[in-house]
Amino acid sequence: MTDTLVSSASKEVRIGFARPFVIIGERINPTGRKILAEEMKNGNYDRVISDALAQVAAGAHMLDVNAGIPLADEPAILAEAIKRVQAVTDVPLSIDSSIVAALESGLSVYQGKALVNSVTGEDERLESVLPLVAKYGAAVVAISNDETGISEDPDVRFAVAKKIVERAADHGIPYSDVVVDPLVMPIGAINSAGKQVMHIVRRLREELKVNTTCGASNVSFGLPNRNGINCAFLTMAIGAGMTSAITSPLHAEVMQAVCGADVMMGNDPDCRNWIRKYREPAADGSDGRRARRGRRRRPD
Amino acid sequence: MTDTLVSSASKEVRIGFARPFVIIGERINPTGRKILAEEMKNGNYDRVISDALAQVAAGAHMLDVNAGIPLADEPAILAEAIKRVQAVTDVPLSIDSSIVAALESGLSVYQGKALVNSVTGEDERLESVLPLVAKYGAAVVAISNDETGISEDPDVRFAVAKKIVERAADHGIPYSDVVVDPLVMPIGAINSAGKQVMHIVRRLREELKVNTTCGASNVSFGLPNRNGINCAFLTMAIGAGMTSAITSPLHAEVMQAVCGADVMMGNDPDCRNWIRKYREPAADGSDGRRARRGRRRRPD
Repeated sequence: MTDTLVSSASKEVRIGFARPFVIIGERINPTGRKILAEEMKNGNYDRVISDALAQVAAGAHMLDVNAGIPLADEPAILAEAIKRVQAVTDVPLSIDSSIVAALESGLSVYQGKALVNSVTGEDERLESVLPLVAKYGAAVVAISNDETGISEDPDVRFAVAKKIVERAADHGIPYSDVVVDPLVMPIGAINSAGKQVMHIVRRLREELKVNTTCGASNVSFGLPNRNGINCAFLTMAIGAGMTSAITSPLHAEVMQAVCGADVMMGNDPDCRNWIRKYREPAADGSDGRRARRGRRRRPD
Repeated sequence: MTDTLVSSASKEVRIGFARPFVIIGERINPTGRKILAEEMKNGNYDRVISDALAQVAAGAHMLDVNAGIPLADEPAILAEAIKRVQAVTDVPLSIDSSIVAALESGLSVYQGKALVNSVTGEDERLESVLPLVAKYGAAVVAISNDETGISEDPDVRFAVAKKIVERAADHGIPYSDVVVDPLVMPIGAINSAGKQVMHIVRRLREELKVNTTCGASNVSFGLPNRNGINCAFLTMAIGAGMTSAITSPLHAEVMQAVCGADVMMGNDPDCRNWIRKYREPAADGSDGRRARRGRRRRPD
């Protein structure tokens, strides 16, 4: 029963096997969002703030913050974005960059225990990112690829994850602070992508006992009705042991799938969250508890 | 890779690990349907026929036919219902009764290889139903309860299933013709019901190598937004190895969950079924393939 604790100045979130699935909102990311990129570059964080608030209102437990804008001062922008987001929400953040200096800059202003996103299995990355994670007492997302790229063999990806967990331990980072991303391929291109992920997630949970995350929406790339595929993926991945995902909480259908999966895993005690969310409102505007009690099924 | 073959006079359906999930339409069942019960009792099969056609149109691969009406001549009504349904559809049927004489009457008129629904682990039931299944060369649903009732311990339910599979073998019925129903409890009352089912389904698949089915909608009994729970259940159960379910195909949301789960399991080659079903129609009324190719994502 591994718990990964992350926090803001005032709030703790635990990612864990026996806990509700953790949604890490993915929207604060200028990649592919021209307007947001321009705004962030020019010091306008209005959209960053509104995206933060909208995702938390929609049920995100954490937020990912990325400032990857070509030719911009990423360390400065990432730090500023983190300060702005922490000023308006209390959810813990995932600090997302491929630039080590930006991760450090983000960590230096962060209030609480952050999730660093991410380190891969490449030796150079391990030796530059892990010391930072250790210095700031953060948790870290471990992406299961290395110098050889991303293997289609889930057992190779498992081996890369194992290497990262072991290296983290060498730096004094416990396995409970490593959240492995098994890498999700587009299933329209690789039909076995779903089975691959389920296999590796089960091994990660049973053998390494680590928590897991993923960029969930990648699975549906190129297919119609992407939310439908994303729902199937998340539900099945949660069944296999996945404990968090970096995704958009703004799709009601996807949030419903996650809440339903929590019920199925026995992680929504007495189905309280499900009932609160989906209780039918009564005609008189009351909360429906009384109305439902008297209703009978009329199947014909 | 166990396949359970069932058939009508002209069509075969295979329930199997590496095949799309099989939906057995549940609607032709007078239990709790007063109007249908009255009609069937009076020899009016119009609704039986329209329910059959509607379920097949909605994507049912098989249909369950039940004629359990108190104080009626169930063997005669069940046989007549089967003849009427087989006259208008070519999907294989599940012959559903708790009365052995009704099962025999249904089997005697059935064209093809039926699925007999069901036998339990009680000795008296085993010795009355299994000889019938063997005589008609049918397949059979094995429900994992016995004289002691339904255990909350999934390993006890597994043991009952094992006993039925072994007893079937004594009667010359191969394990590939036994489809086990692990029994799904309402998760609103028993929070661990989901995990119980996933555990037993995995054991049934890995150790007994049998196909599985269930009355899927029972899981959501008493909860609001039942379809949402049913979707989560079916998706996760398919991930654990469930290969068929007796449920209503008339809910688009549930059918989408099943199709999405087929994609996830790698059982929808090239996602052809998914793409055919969910391809966005183009503005010009064409099938949308061309339109989609030119569309670009505008996330802001």
